[in-house]
Parts: sequence; structure tokens; C-alpha cells
Amino acid sequence: MSDLSTSARVSRPGGRGVFVSFEGGDGVGKSTQLALVAERLRAAGHEVVTTREPGGTTLGLQLREAVLHGEHVSPRTEALLYATDRAHHVDTVVRPALERGAVVLTDRYLDSSVAYQGDGRALGAEEVERLSLWATEGLLPDLTVLLDLDPAVGLARLTGDPDRLESAGAEFHRRTRDAFLARATAGGERWLVVDAALPVEAVQEQVRARLDTLLGEVAP
Amino acid sequence: MSDLSTSARVSRPGGRGVFVSFEGGDGVGKSTQLALVAERLRAAGHEVVTTREPGGTTLGLQLREAVLHGEHVSPRTEALLYATDRAHHVDTVVRPALERGAVVLTDRYLDSSVAYQGDGRALGAEEVERLSLWATEGLLPDLTVLLDLDPAVGLARLTGDPDRLESAGAEFHRRTRDAFLARATAGGERWLVVDAALPVEAVQEQVRARLDTLLGEVAP
Repeated sequence: MSDLSTSARVSRPGGRGVFVSFEGGDGVGKSTQLALVAERLRAAGHEVVTTREPGGTTLGLQLREAVLHGEHVSPRTEALLYATDRAHHVDTVVRPALERGAVVLTDRYLDSSVAYQGDGRALGAEEVERLSLWATEGLLPDLTVLLDLDPAVGLARLTGDPDRLESAGAEFHRRTRDAFLARATAGGERWLVVDAALPVEAVQEQVRARLDTLLGEVAP
Repeated sequence: MSDLSTSARVSRPGGRGVFVSFEGGDGVGKSTQLALVAERLRAAGHEVVTTREPGGTTLGLQLREAVLHGEHVSPRTEALLYATDRAHHVDTVVRPALERGAVVLTDRYLDSSVAYQGDGRALGAEEVERLSLWATEGLLPDLTVLLDLDPAVGLARLTGDPDRLESAGAEFHRRTRDAFLARATAGGERWLVVDAALPVEAVQEQVRARLDTLLGEVAP
């Protein structure tokens, strides 16, 4: 029997495809970079599935609505809601695509839960990660692209207002950035950290180089 | 740090009240017995909170809707949905009431998840229980009343049709009954098993006797 505590039990059963997540704060350019990668890989003949968390499924949209516009929930309930979304997303979207041999590009995955929920809140990073690994039966990306940016710059990109950060909780966004960076540093080979202050094409070039290596190893 | 795997870490922090769950298959009389207990305890001056799972909160109703009328979900996703409901229910309804010293009567709790989901399905009873204990920070009832009845009798009570059981999956309902009974046998002091084929008043008499002992130990 599998065990909720076995965070080391990480696998990608049945997948011939490649699973890539894009992570980072709001306004770092995840959706732009994801779209550019998708376009290029499709042009090269790959089947590409683009998706997101939360909300990559109908159930996920319902859960997202419940979190964003419903009752206030505790950190533990919130973690369970995201884990539910992730279980269903992996089950119905990600794993079937990987089994077909597709490239799956997701805007946020497990690392967002750990960075946003596991740091400085009631639960702790390790517990949030364990829950997500239990929910996904240990599915981790082959590559996680962390687009790293000063949160003040990212939020100003989104709103045109450089003061927005303070109202949104400057300290929270800085802690989240630090949590992503610490995770990438400790996480090893799976991670590619890119300076998202660079021009879009320069960021894409770094993502492309790493992805080409990965696809060369896995494909044709 | 608490641990998702520590199913033994069971506690009821902060509660002066008494927590009672009613379990059993459909049609065994849970809501009738619960209402009779509530009426009697209120008449005796207790604060009584009656509630249910799933759907004891607004979020729970949304989740229930998602399970019953939404996309098909895997057993793992289903377990996470119920655990999410339970976390929020304990957090916002059950624990606050126990801390006030109320008697909380719930129509179904954790044992329903274990009996319905943990038996003969993909996950296994132990994993479903661990997840629920993680969700609730180990909150178990002081008393669990199992109303035990042949499923054919219970479903005929609901529908007036003794053949209903076959269409609803006779084998599934029999396995669920066996799972409840096995759990009660192994679970010790927390459980009271009552033959729900007895008349309503005879069942209530057994529940009343046990509850009076429990309230005598806890109160005034």
C-alpha cells in the first residue's frame, strides 16, 4: 500500500511524453513563455497540451470558484482544495497526455502550492508537498521553469502601478519568491531558473535550449 | 510538525463538549434517531448542534454538487473532495461548537468515508482514514452510533421497493455493511452498534442509555 508520508516515492508511470511546469509570481511572464514554447513545439510536429492549475478541468473551475468567491477557508482546507484539483487534473488531463507521448505544458503545478501555502503559514512546506504527492501518486515534472523576478516589477507589469505590491502584501510576495528560489536550489536537475527581467526572447532562448536537450534525451 | 501518516495521533483539543456521529447505510434511521436525541438533550438544557456530512457547510454543498452532478472523478479525487469537506466542516462547525461545550450530532463522519471508499476500491481503508485524520487534525467522535441493518431492508424502507437493492449494487451495500461492522468491532469503546431492525423507540433507548453515561462522565 502506498503511504501518504512517502514524499520520496516519486515516479512518472506510463509516460512517454514530457511534462513541463512554469512557475513564479504573478506577472513574471509564465503564460507568454508557455505559449511561445507551445507554438514552436507544435511547428516541430509535437503534440502539445497546454493547461493550468488551478482550473485546468471543469471540477477545478468549480473548486477555484469556491476558493476565490466562497467562504473563508483555513490553510488546511485550502491545501486540500488545491490537492483535489491537482489529483483530478493529473488524472484526466496530464497523465493521459503523457501516456500518448505528448508534451504537457502547465501554468503552475505542485511547486506553487508549496511556495504559496507552505511558507510562513500554518502547515509547512513539507506537509503541503506530501499531500500533493499523495494526490498525484508522485507525479513530478521533467522540467520546472522558474521565472524569477522582483515581485515589485512583476506586479507593476500586471497593473501598471508600481505601488500595487504594498497593498497586495509585499512581505508575502517576497517570501514566496524566496521559497521558489530555495526550492529550485535544493531541487536539483528538475529546475531551470531564468531571470525574468530579461527580454521575452532572451528568456525563451534559455527555456528553448534546456527543452531541446530534454526532448533530445526523451524523443524521438 | 504533524505527519500525514500518523493515524494514531488522535485528539480532541479544546473541546468541553461531546461529539457523536451516526453511521450506517441508507434507510437505517440515522436522521430519525439523531432528531430524537437532539430533542431530548435540548429539553434537558444542553446546547445541541445537528449537522451532516457531506454538505454541512456552504463549501460542502458546492463540493457535494461537484461530486454528484459533475464530471466522473477517480477514487483518490473523491477521497480528497470528502476530506476537504470534512476539514472545513470540523473547522467552522464542529470544533467551535465543542469548544463552547455543545453536544454535536452529525449524520455521517469519517467512518462513512472509510466504509464506502476504503473497502474494495483502489485506495484501501487505511489510506482513506489517514487522509481524513490529517484533514481534521485527528478529531474522532466521543461516540459513534452504528445503526446496523440488512441493506435490503434499509433500501426498501427508503423506496418501498424490496428489489431496489439489486439495481443499486447489492454486493457493494453488503460490503459496506460488513466494513462498518468490522470497524466497530476493531474500534473499541467509541462504538455503539444497535440493531436497526428494532422499533424506533427501542433503538433510541439503547442510544439514550449510552449517551447518558457519556454525558454523565463529561458534564455537567
